Amino acid sequence: MDSFTFHSPTYFAFGQDMESQSGDLVRRFGGSKLLIHYGGGSVVRSGLLDRIRASLAQAGLTWVELGGVQPNPRSGLVYTGIELCRREKVDFILVVGGGSAIDSAKAIAAGVPYDGDFWDFYRGKAIRQALPVGTVLTIAAAGSEGSPDSVITHEDGLHKRGASGPALRPVFSVLNPALTQTLPPFQTACGITDIMAHLFERYFTTTRDVETTDRLIEGLLLAMVHEAPRVIENPDDYGARANIMWAGMMAHNNSCGVGRSQDWASHNIEHELSALYDCAHGAGLAVVFPAWMTYTLQQDVARFAQLAVRVWGCQMDFAQPERTALAGIQALRSFLASIGMPGTLTELGAREEDIARMAHNACFGDGRQGTLGGFMRLDEQDVANIYRLML
Amino acid sequence: MDSFTFHSPTYFAFGQDMESQSGDLVRRFGGSKLLIHYGGGSVVRSGLLDRIRASLAQAGLTWVELGGVQPNPRSGLVYTGIELCRREKVDFILVVGGGSAIDSAKAIAAGVPYDGDFWDFYRGKAIRQALPVGTVLTIAAAGSEGSPDSVITHEDGLHKRGASGPALRPVFSVLNPALTQTLPPFQTACGITDIMAHLFERYFTTTRDVETTDRLIEGLLLAMVHEAPRVIENPDDYGARANIMWAGMMAHNNSCGVGRSQDWASHNIEHELSALYDCAHGAGLAVVFPAWMTYTLQQDVARFAQLAVRVWGCQMDFAQPERTALAGIQALRSFLASIGMPGTLTELGAREEDIARMAHNACFGDGRQGTLGGFMRLDEQDVANIYRLML
Repeated sequence: MDSFTFHSPTYFAFGQDMESQSGDLVRRFGGSKLLIHYGGGSVVRSGLLDRIRASLAQAGLTWVELGGVQPNPRSGLVYTGIELCRREKVDFILVVGGGSAIDSAKAIAAGVPYDGDFWDFYRGKAIRQALPVGTVLTIAAAGSEGSPDSVITHEDGLHKRGASGPALRPVFSVLNPALTQTLPPFQTACGITDIMAHLFERYFTTTRDVETTDRLIEGLLLAMVHEAPRVIENPDDYGARANIMWAGMMAHNNSCGVGRSQDWASHNIEHELSALYDCAHGAGLAVVFPAWMTYTLQQDVARFAQLAVRVWGCQMDFAQPERTALAGIQALRSFLASIGMPGTLTELGAREEDIARMAHNACFGDGRQGTLGGFMRLDEQDVANIYRLML
Repeated sequence: MDSFTFHSPTYFAFGQDMESQSGDLVRRFGGSKLLIHYGGGSVVRSGLLDRIRASLAQAGLTWVELGGVQPNPRSGLVYTGIELCRREKVDFILVVGGGSAIDSAKAIAAGVPYDGDFWDFYRGKAIRQALPVGTVLTIAAAGSEGSPDSVITHEDGLHKRGASGPALRPVFSVLNPALTQTLPPFQTACGITDIMAHLFERYFTTTRDVETTDRLIEGLLLAMVHEAPRVIENPDDYGARANIMWAGMMAHNNSCGVGRSQDWASHNIEHELSALYDCAHGAGLAVVFPAWMTYTLQQDVARFAQLAVRVWGCQMDFAQPERTALAGIQALRSFLASIGMPGTLTELGAREEDIARMAHNACFGDGRQGTLGGFMRLDEQDVANIYRLML
């Protein structure tokens, strides 16, 4: 295990109707004039936004609103939000939605007190301060409700980049699993895939002696393998939704990823897909991960075999561990297909002729240094090869 | 899963030499005049206390010191500490040691701003405020470095009781696994047993749909089963020490215990043993848990079988699940014996003739309501029966 610091001070209110405490929570964490930030019409249609407005009004708070966050959230709305917050002297952002809305809110929060272009933070500049952000989560997926991370796509060049910093951890997050019961199966499955991807990114490490975090990661993966078919079969299964929601937070607040190198090539490889084709991030990850695993298998066959045995229940082939490792990748493919995820670039609407461009952009685009990944260092050629494995 | 709130804002600095940052950390979290609280001579002899003093001096801090915390920490030193802090206008407590020292520091921290007797908090009164506490941990065991809990034995009647409250979460904890390398095997094994006990207390629940937290608990148990023999064989194994240290925190900060009923009868049954015979808490737990499991097995055979299969690698007997469940308890006994833990009351120095008194005190002593345990409700007779199973 490597040395690390870990600080996850987000306050979580988990369970039925917890969103009715939004007003009290904002007060408790120092907000008085809010921006309510949200995405599409579902939070309006479902009545969720009205319930939250009622809670805020009851707590004597005032607010302005900015809706319209798209999946794969864009820079344009961030600039609008920063402008709005400054004009209205907003001191707290309450975001209602999933990872896209939360990431957009975090970008606004960092941009408001900063003199320069908020995009600087997504090109590597350290974030010194940000407005406090509270969240009411509506999909278990991104883990942004408990993480210090944000991913935004810049409309100028379609660069999709991440920023990170302690100031971006939400001060509170409301996790009500019932709010996710209306999600269609495809979005639910995308969320589950994203959660599992966050675990894989941490699992594939070059750090030795990481049994505790290995076991935590495997435990969360096993829980997803157990809960996913239940919730696909019955979207109203509150218990399954609840398990997925807590796992989604735990998968990405980094308590299971501390003290070990992580990979994150697959996320960057996927970001090119969702930036270019606007596919769902989770669906993109479902296509990328099996290909990335196949390509990097030789890097550490034992680790792949461990995953296959411990999570997928494969029999260990002690004479030929590589067969076990491959069986694990095949089990992942079958699992993803069983929950309705795509398996090829074609299913995502992606084209072979874009591969060279995506590989180049992934390695040399805005802010990049030529290679990706902590588990296996991938250059542009490697990345193109991995895209080809997805055809 | 049940509804819950979760807030774990402790800042963790994990790794080699992290204690050299003590001064900066105290400054960062607002301390200026400190109490350094510690236990026996080992932190003095090892030079650890000197290194911490140097770090504090470099940060321009002043302090007073109070050593002498005993295992199963007593009320007497708490009263002394409260008096000292008030007289010296201390605004921060830095504790160097294990769970006993940390729990003593938390009791002092809660007592200083309180007009009444600090023991009120250990009889159930809510803790409104406390001085901030930072820790430098020297044994992986109690999890007090990341928990809101404290256990103290009152010298008047030898009642051993717990208090809990958000104000008791340390503001920071320094976790340097190297500091635990000098621990003798017996104390190391006691610590591992305590960590596993914190996991068992959470595992045995009556709440349904808890797959995510089940898997997290099982993962931490599996990690302990893997790391314990390594560290017993080679006390200098930094990697094993590091895995145990992070697991000890994760086992008790409650991220793996949220949204489910917990048990905690075994801890209370053990507290009578360590209060009366002053045995090591972990050694007491090693004797109590297999007996408690044997007694409560019929409450939920499937849960015991799940533990046996998933953690102990037992083969599931589908026709007679109880056989699997019993095999799991036997596996726990064997494991505990293999790391040098006692298995009977006699080995702890306890006497059969004290059983009635202990059972009565556990159920009706200071602040108790007549029964113990969330998984199976135990009355005085049940508790006495469990003690007898330990003979």
